Amino acid sequence: MRQSQLFVKTSREFPKDEASKSAQFLLRAGFIDKLAAGIYTYLPLGLRVLEKIERIIDNEMKSIGAQRILMPSLIPKVNWQTTGRWNKFDALYKLKGKNKLEYALGATHEEVVVPLVKKHVSSWRDLPLAVFQIQNKFRNEFRAKSGILRTREFLMKDLYSFHRSEEELDKFYQKVQKAYNKIFKKVGILSKTYLTLAPGGTFSKYSHEYQTITSAGEDLVYFCPKCKVALNKELVVNGAKPKCWRCKRKLSEQYKSIEVANIFKLKEKYTKPFDFRFTDKDGKKKLVLMGCYGIGLGRLMGAVIEIWHDDFGIIWPKSIAPFEMHLIRIGESKGVKEKSEEIYRSLQKAGHEVIYDDRIQITPGEKFMDCDLIGIPLRIVVSEKTLKKNSVEIKKRNQKKLNFVKINHLLRYLENN
Amino acid sequence: MRQSQLFVKTSREFPKDEASKSAQFLLRAGFIDKLAAGIYTYLPLGLRVLEKIERIIDNEMKSIGAQRILMPSLIPKVNWQTTGRWNKFDALYKLKGKNKLEYALGATHEEVVVPLVKKHVSSWRDLPLAVFQIQNKFRNEFRAKSGILRTREFLMKDLYSFHRSEEELDKFYQKVQKAYNKIFKKVGILSKTYLTLAPGGTFSKYSHEYQTITSAGEDLVYFCPKCKVALNKELVVNGAKPKCWRCKRKLSEQYKSIEVANIFKLKEKYTKPFDFRFTDKDGKKKLVLMGCYGIGLGRLMGAVIEIWHDDFGIIWPKSIAPFEMHLIRIGESKGVKEKSEEIYRSLQKAGHEVIYDDRIQITPGEKFMDCDLIGIPLRIVVSEKTLKKNSVEIKKRNQKKLNFVKINHLLRYLENN
Repeated sequence: MRQSQLFVKTSREFPKDEASKSAQFLLRAGFIDKLAAGIYTYLPLGLRVLEKIERIIDNEMKSIGAQRILMPSLIPKVNWQTTGRWNKFDALYKLKGKNKLEYALGATHEEVVVPLVKKHVSSWRDLPLAVFQIQNKFRNEFRAKSGILRTREFLMKDLYSFHRSEEELDKFYQKVQKAYNKIFKKVGILSKTYLTLAPGGTFSKYSHEYQTITSAGEDLVYFCPKCKVALNKELVVNGAKPKCWRCKRKLSEQYKSIEVANIFKLKEKYTKPFDFRFTDKDGKKKLVLMGCYGIGLGRLMGAVIEIWHDDFGIIWPKSIAPFEMHLIRIGESKGVKEKSEEIYRSLQKAGHEVIYDDRIQITPGEKFMDCDLIGIPLRIVVSEKTLKKNSVEIKKRNQKKLNFVKINHLLRYLENN
Repeated sequence: MRQSQLFVKTSREFPKDEASKSAQFLLRAGFIDKLAAGIYTYLPLGLRVLEKIERIIDNEMKSIGAQRILMPSLIPKVNWQTTGRWNKFDALYKLKGKNKLEYALGATHEEVVVPLVKKHVSSWRDLPLAVFQIQNKFRNEFRAKSGILRTREFLMKDLYSFHRSEEELDKFYQKVQKAYNKIFKKVGILSKTYLTLAPGGTFSKYSHEYQTITSAGEDLVYFCPKCKVALNKELVVNGAKPKCWRCKRKLSEQYKSIEVANIFKLKEKYTKPFDFRFTDKDGKKKLVLMGCYGIGLGRLMGAVIEIWHDDFGIIWPKSIAPFEMHLIRIGESKGVKEKSEEIYRSLQKAGHEVIYDDRIQITPGEKFMDCDLIGIPLRIVVSEKTLKKNSVEIKKRNQKKLNFVKINHLLRYLENN
């Protein structure tokens, strides 16, 4: 796309009310806009990243056999009363419609998915099964902070699985862990992300979270470098020395971290109140066992930036960068303009995702600063200087080295680099 | 996908509380599930249709230069107060969060998009521009009815355009009309859909709607067969004979119709309260002029079914069918099973979207009934009978004719038909 057409402008000002690096860069680079505390609009560049994250997650969920659906946000009071969460779940936004109908906005969807799946499952033959959605969640947070890391409204992937036995649930639980690791690897945070034992909260005694180590985090964890797992500080009794819950060895010192995902073995917790049973092979009616597995898409995006940035801006991993390459035109001469347009067309024709800085009345310095701020993986510069060598200048966002590449070799170079 | 894996089951029962054909078929065929009046879940087949409609709309919007964003649903009270709609807009769902923060759920997004775009526009050089989103809307309806035709929560494409002059707004308004016609053509309802003059409501004196003629509609229109436009009955003064607003001729008799889309020239209505001005070429500060353009995705899906069905089920247009073809295995013999699996694999390998009815313990009659109900454009049957001729039996959903096609010619046949 042409940067001159992009309606969003970058900003040199640092937002005063945002502490996290990810929020600062996202706001300054024009990926998001803040409507109110904890409430953001995704602008064109931000939405492109979000869509790429969505596609990665969607693929991994489908590859473990989960079926995608889309549940509503308006959830009737009676559903929440069935599980007792109308009063117990503190973060619900409640509202009243005409006809005195009462709802809470979906903060999580057990209250919808359990009665839904119950309608279609009666026999052991119908199980196991898993459904997921990628949908907006609402949480009535007292304080919203850290930009898109903790918001009142956010896009979440929530997966729910239904099983006949604990062994079956355990097996699927392992499968989801593998899928999650693939997702974290693809978006570039696997090496900093630990499967973490944590309190269960409203769900169960223990739960597992995925915590990404970064100073922007609000959680505290100790990790085991050997087992690649971590322990949430909330589970450490005062004064006790934290031990690895796998190998029982001493853990690392304390680190700040962000919870990018969580997985719970809910077992009978929500199938019992809805009396969701199946007829087993032995003819007996048994409660269905359940697991739930969440990933916050905006939070994942924020975590990626907390890890992948420098002083000048974001350094997007290629997999979720809004564009593959940033073509920058320096100079307004006819030769530079024509050649830039030609290169832009040929890159697009070859199937590359290019953002093309064709803006006029912007200094080269500003263009380079915007380019670093936005953080596209590859920068391609066309100027009088490069054209003298029939070349473009290529630089990776995460490297200092400049390469001059002949224009007629450019497509081949990009294929191999 | 394998139908045996699909967690949703079809139903022979007619839902008692749904009057419209589209709702009945969508519920019975397992495309949607009703959570409460006016609130639905999209199940796997329904979501696939919704995603295809989304892609068609997304493409057309981008082809007229609109930039996609994603605005939030929680909109602070102050934004609604600025335009006066906190009290005047009857269909808002209002809610209160912690810290006494008050919001209304987005029923439309002028209150978000105007201050957002204002941040990035100052000069005539920044205009015109258009942004759109495909996002959930909430309407506090007194009565919700007709299945997905009128709901309390629904996916909507809302496009907003910003201009320097009325001429520029008019020009873009025409562009959107062309894009809308392309969308209606692609989803198969253009011939029944009329650009309709209607009251402006909270927006302006007049507005334009797109009304699709169907007995399931809640609106009443008169149309002009020559000009291909219609007039909403609400604009006809008691006793007066309705005339075409283009050619002034007599209009058709009264028809029921569904409003599938609307377009408004908002002009200064929302830019004025937010004092959204630009500096024109002459150096003067002027109010930005605005247009807004909506399409309800669920309603469009419902309208398509109201037009494309028979007594047995839905007849999906190919462009938005959840799958391209329905492969049906009749019989459980080793030969039929192996050949069906082989054909399923080869169809998938060739890039076709296939749903494969591999269910056991389901009679042929039930399989055919489900197939008609679900409404995939092409049915491919494999049975002992067809295999005796080394063939499959092919039938289009909208035709009665059966064709026997040799299995080794199947892919070529599908390419050419």
